[in-house]
Amino acid sequence: MLSATALLAGAQERKSDYVNPIIGTNGMGHTFPGACAPFGIVQLSPDTDTIPQNVDGRYQPDVYAYCAGYQYHDPTIVGFSHTHLSGTGHSDLGDVLIMPITGPIRTNPGTADHPETGYRSRYSHESEHCSPGYYEVELKDYGIKAQLTATQRVGVHQYTFPSNEGQFVLDLGHGIYNYEGKTVWTYLRVVNDTLLTGYRITNGWARQNYTYFAISLSAPIARYGYSDRQRMKYSGFWRKNDIHHNFPDMAGREMVAYFQMPLTDRRLTLRVALSGVSMSGAIANLEAEAAGRSFDEVRRQTAEAWEHELEMIDIEGTRDQKVLFYTSLYHTMINPSVYMDVDGQYRGNDMEIHRADGFTNYTVFSLWDTYRAEHPLLNLLKPKQGRDMAESMVAIQEQSPLGLLPMWFLMANEGWCMSGYHAVPVLADAATKAGLPRSQRILSAMDATATSPWVEGMNDYIEMGYVPYDRCGTSASNTLEYAFDDWTIYYTALKAGNAEMAARYRQRALNYRNVFNPALGLACPKYKNGTWKKDFSPLQTYGEGFIEGNSANYSFHVPHDVQGMIACFGGEKIFVRRLDSLFAVPLDKKYYEDNEDIEEECLMGGYVHGNEPSHHVPYLYAWTSQLWKSQYWLREIMNRMYVNDMDGLHGNDDCGQMSAWYIFSAMGFYPVCPGTDQYVIGAPYVPHCKVTFDNGRVLEIRANGVSDTKRYVKNVKLNGKTLTRRYLTHSELTAGGLLEFEMATKPNRNSQQRELPYSLSAE
Amino acid sequence: MLSATALLAGAQERKSDYVNPIIGTNGMGHTFPGACAPFGIVQLSPDTDTIPQNVDGRYQPDVYAYCAGYQYHDPTIVGFSHTHLSGTGHSDLGDVLIMPITGPIRTNPGTADHPETGYRSRYSHESEHCSPGYYEVELKDYGIKAQLTATQRVGVHQYTFPSNEGQFVLDLGHGIYNYEGKTVWTYLRVVNDTLLTGYRITNGWARQNYTYFAISLSAPIARYGYSDRQRMKYSGFWRKNDIHHNFPDMAGREMVAYFQMPLTDRRLTLRVALSGVSMSGAIANLEAEAAGRSFDEVRRQTAEAWEHELEMIDIEGTRDQKVLFYTSLYHTMINPSVYMDVDGQYRGNDMEIHRADGFTNYTVFSLWDTYRAEHPLLNLLKPKQGRDMAESMVAIQEQSPLGLLPMWFLMANEGWCMSGYHAVPVLADAATKAGLPRSQRILSAMDATATSPWVEGMNDYIEMGYVPYDRCGTSASNTLEYAFDDWTIYYTALKAGNAEMAARYRQRALNYRNVFNPALGLACPKYKNGTWKKDFSPLQTYGEGFIEGNSANYSFHVPHDVQGMIACFGGEKIFVRRLDSLFAVPLDKKYYEDNEDIEEECLMGGYVHGNEPSHHVPYLYAWTSQLWKSQYWLREIMNRMYVNDMDGLHGNDDCGQMSAWYIFSAMGFYPVCPGTDQYVIGAPYVPHCKVTFDNGRVLEIRANGVSDTKRYVKNVKLNGKTLTRRYLTHSELTAGGLLEFEMATKPNRNSQQRELPYSLSAE
Repeated sequence: MLSATALLAGAQERKSDYVNPIIGTNGMGHTFPGACAPFGIVQLSPDTDTIPQNVDGRYQPDVYAYCAGYQYHDPTIVGFSHTHLSGTGHSDLGDVLIMPITGPIRTNPGTADHPETGYRSRYSHESEHCSPGYYEVELKDYGIKAQLTATQRVGVHQYTFPSNEGQFVLDLGHGIYNYEGKTVWTYLRVVNDTLLTGYRITNGWARQNYTYFAISLSAPIARYGYSDRQRMKYSGFWRKNDIHHNFPDMAGREMVAYFQMPLTDRRLTLRVALSGVSMSGAIANLEAEAAGRSFDEVRRQTAEAWEHELEMIDIEGTRDQKVLFYTSLYHTMINPSVYMDVDGQYRGNDMEIHRADGFTNYTVFSLWDTYRAEHPLLNLLKPKQGRDMAESMVAIQEQSPLGLLPMWFLMANEGWCMSGYHAVPVLADAATKAGLPRSQRILSAMDATATSPWVEGMNDYIEMGYVPYDRCGTSASNTLEYAFDDWTIYYTALKAGNAEMAARYRQRALNYRNVFNPALGLACPKYKNGTWKKDFSPLQTYGEGFIEGNSANYSFHVPHDVQGMIACFGGEKIFVRRLDSLFAVPLDKKYYEDNEDIEEECLMGGYVHGNEPSHHVPYLYAWTSQLWKSQYWLREIMNRMYVNDMDGLHGNDDCGQMSAWYIFSAMGFYPVCPGTDQYVIGAPYVPHCKVTFDNGRVLEIRANGVSDTKRYVKNVKLNGKTLTRRYLTHSELTAGGLLEFEMATKPNRNSQQRELPYSLSAE
Repeated sequence: MLSATALLAGAQERKSDYVNPIIGTNGMGHTFPGACAPFGIVQLSPDTDTIPQNVDGRYQPDVYAYCAGYQYHDPTIVGFSHTHLSGTGHSDLGDVLIMPITGPIRTNPGTADHPETGYRSRYSHESEHCSPGYYEVELKDYGIKAQLTATQRVGVHQYTFPSNEGQFVLDLGHGIYNYEGKTVWTYLRVVNDTLLTGYRITNGWARQNYTYFAISLSAPIARYGYSDRQRMKYSGFWRKNDIHHNFPDMAGREMVAYFQMPLTDRRLTLRVALSGVSMSGAIANLEAEAAGRSFDEVRRQTAEAWEHELEMIDIEGTRDQKVLFYTSLYHTMINPSVYMDVDGQYRGNDMEIHRADGFTNYTVFSLWDTYRAEHPLLNLLKPKQGRDMAESMVAIQEQSPLGLLPMWFLMANEGWCMSGYHAVPVLADAATKAGLPRSQRILSAMDATATSPWVEGMNDYIEMGYVPYDRCGTSASNTLEYAFDDWTIYYTALKAGNAEMAARYRQRALNYRNVFNPALGLACPKYKNGTWKKDFSPLQTYGEGFIEGNSANYSFHVPHDVQGMIACFGGEKIFVRRLDSLFAVPLDKKYYEDNEDIEEECLMGGYVHGNEPSHHVPYLYAWTSQLWKSQYWLREIMNRMYVNDMDGLHGNDDCGQMSAWYIFSAMGFYPVCPGTDQYVIGAPYVPHCKVTFDNGRVLEIRANGVSDTKRYVKNVKLNGKTLTRRYLTHSELTAGGLLEFEMATKPNRNSQQRELPYSLSAE
């Protein structure tokens, strides 16, 4: 691998060298291998396919496999597009595809079986090199070396052609999940012989997505033209001009343009800036971030930016442990992404252009996933970004035609994916940890969302204390999720001194109890009339009142009142037995074989790490007498669910959630209940870890001799003093100091760690 | 007719009372009867059809008949849309259609034969009342009285329902020339129960047209929903919500929404503001122009605005003469239209948002038509508007991806219709008459356009001095038009002191000679190799090297060098014979029967007044010894080509060109060569006329006893002094004073008017 080191002086270890962007690019991980800057809106990456597959005689896109546009096992690269979701379970983007070619012009991508029918090319992984902010590959069919790097808003391509005949295709109709008609409109202007501008409007998962761009070229264009795959409905008078040759003002439904330019050193550099606002915004972004800088300069600058982020945490461990740790840390800083021009303008959810006043606007909020660990990790390590993301969410609520905080938000659009109103815990967590003021604006945004009739089943939930199963198919998980979200409103209102609101939401925070079926000791879908679903299977994932998780997993989703939940299970003994069997008893194949989200290697017993509702579950032993079982299972999960290879993520990375879980767990603690200032203590995965916080303080975490055999915690000391708690507070961490874990080969059944973490019932 | 008078006190004659917006609404005129303010972008008018007709088994829109969306003979009204072209020969717009209905919701328009199949309604002309800024009709099928008025940017509807159940349809997929797929995208937001915002993007003649709107309602909406005629390709997670009932955030390819609201007095008022920039721009336009004003107040205000414009000219004459005069004057102030939000922002031809700096931005430039008399009339009567329109054109050139001044420009788009670069004479004319500075910007915009390879045949024209017939089918008329346009550049450069440019374009201004075939004494298409087209027919309109005009008409198109042209014809004797026979010898039907532009009643001999190339021709006798023949034919044209009824315009009004010709000719002079300061004298049509100019000066024109029999001019006096010239200058007119025509029943073959108007050759 050609690493960033090659470019940089000094023998010092570079964290970036451990990042392996290939992890998760095959199968389930849905990560992409391409180039991006930390939190950048541009993710310039190869798309290996997005082509429909023939299903029942009709072409349908393989939505799920190509969420990030790339599958490692694919034999061809279609081209390099500029926007990608990192690790999601649903598809979109892939905007502004560029493919350098030689020989005859082709304006269709062709097929993987017959790449010669289009502009795509074969490639081999031997020629593929990637590191944070850099991607390189050889396009075999053309003998072109492609190098990619990026700033936050600009993708920079460097193509080395086999001769001085430079040529590329710009496919404005390309996209991920590219069903016919997804591209609504495309526009392209040749401003001069080294500058192109344009935009495309798409109707995808992002219902109306405006992607403006500006492309500057290192060599002047000699010839160009385009074809329109969906012929423009009215072209009337336009026929007066020969629009297919060197006509600089192009528009159409799905344009594919080509450009040819003589080169002097076989090299062509393209700088492609994006904007959600306007073409002039894209030009300004280009000017600000990439103008006058060579490919190598941009590459070096972005490599430095990544190194700066990654060296926040210094760990010791095996090479694989370091690779997994730093790749995970890398994956936590791709989405959310900056969605704002350098002048502060951005497109709001109301499709109006706004100017961010005092914050940086972000997008790509996969909140059902990321409220758990991704946002808490950023609130801990990157509080400025944490605050800005929270501010972005409040702006969304204020601009939303529905008055809602984001649910699954991408570019300027609410994507209505998954459930809950989990922007609320993110705001609560940012208030507790990242310095977000608990202002009336924040409380209003939370309250408006948590009482909105557009939240599934909310009217019934308010009236009856649960979402009835007659109302929706995921009523039980909805109720559990709403109750937790409500707790975070309660807690925020309490701290803000709003007693009325606190009381109202404290009441709602206990609603989880309304879906616990006392006869089963498990959460269960309940009808309006108060009766429980008959023939209920706690192991079946779908059709039983839960979303992406069965009752056996989901019933543990009461992070804000674990003690109250234990009572609902029927007491600690039953609770521990349920936890034990979740991890240890294999799940019969019939419960997951039809499920696109779950494969056999994703399972540990019935525990599905690839589906987020499980993420806090291994920590729940902290509220029981068998604390050491957390220590056992956490290491098991880290060993089995994270592997240093292309298939290395056993589940969607979900915009960094899987990765953020790994970072926390490897350090030895986890934010079980976001919004509190507590991190529940597990056990470190690596012997030494040093975290440099934003405030300059350094926390050292030592777990001498930790290993698969020596995985148990005998004793914990904070700054030399034995810890009698099972949690650490946010201020303890960020104050810096020394956190020492004494590790042992056997469980310590008599731990000094006695004080339980927070539970609402225990207040 | 319920006229504005009914609303206004005072017994004084109101010019508005003479305006009959029905003139030209049947057949060829292509005017619309609806409500607009002077130069307003909103033309709120009934569309009687836009439905495709079955041609060869395929549905095709009847583009030509429905250029303004309305044909008087149609039995049904589809609804009321907000944008209309006035008198054009090509179709577009019809944006944001609203139709009040009763009974069951219908989201399709239905057909004229079976209106009950859709939301359209029958109506009768007896219930139809219109005046400047006002339109009223009863929708028979619903018993709804519809009243419409408008400000420049806001259409105001007042509907009186038969009961207190208010209801209307908002069809965002409706449009004029509405082939399938014209509507690219639609968005609609219910901001609150009395405010809607949204936009539609269309791909019509205006290649990419963005129409944003804001609609405020006088009564709160109780229920609403929509259907999407072109189902949204990806609706995925949106299905989570019941988007068809009261879901306030709607988007789709071709949405039709309905709204229901209880009323208290059976009345519903809607204020619909448009913007080319944004929804917030539309809201600001609404606030500025219509908020807090009742329907009657807006109606009165717009009636006053029209009265103010119309009373610039006070005439005596028969009622029909007054009706035709004031209706013509009205028609000259609809297009061009303001295309700018109240804050100065507008969408440019580069699809970027700009702010007009020191001018008002206009659009709808039908320049092949309007450079002749419409723009000169505005430069005379409305110099501020004349300057602003010229500035708008220069801004277009500067923003144009092709660097071109507008040709046929609508909304933010070049429509590539007709020929020439006739923005150039408009700039020249505005510089001579309306105070436009002859700055380097103006000269550069002219020069860039007149040398652009995107102007048809320009490279050959520059090289060879004419557009060769091998290059394009309208090469002869192109050459004539280019030569005139070039003269206006010459004249402007000369006055600006740019000798190099003046010399270059003086040379080009003589290029008309290169297409005069000396053997014929007529303009004729010539090949690259210098030979003339064989089997040439000077009477045939199409296929003979000319556009919308035959050689018999078009050969007279050398307005800047009539004396030079006379020489090309073979001397005055032949020239006069040609003119005489043009007016007097009937054109055989075979020359026009296939032509959508020409009907029998549009002809006077071979003179086609409905096609603009003829417009200056009756004035050309002024360069001959038979001046009196102008006087004869001008009155003939005014009598026969302008009639006070629905069919009253014998040709497209072409954004006011037909009407502006009438105003000039009725006053007794005409700008044969726009760009010069001369108006060639004809003969007044009415006995008395008083023009109050912008500068406050008043010009009185007297032609005592003028009539069909007493149509000849014996003598002309300006301020008591006999005029020996055949023209008046701009400064003479705008200085005010008394212009007296002594009329006679016989030609004065010994006129004191001896001095010829301008000719380049005579300089």
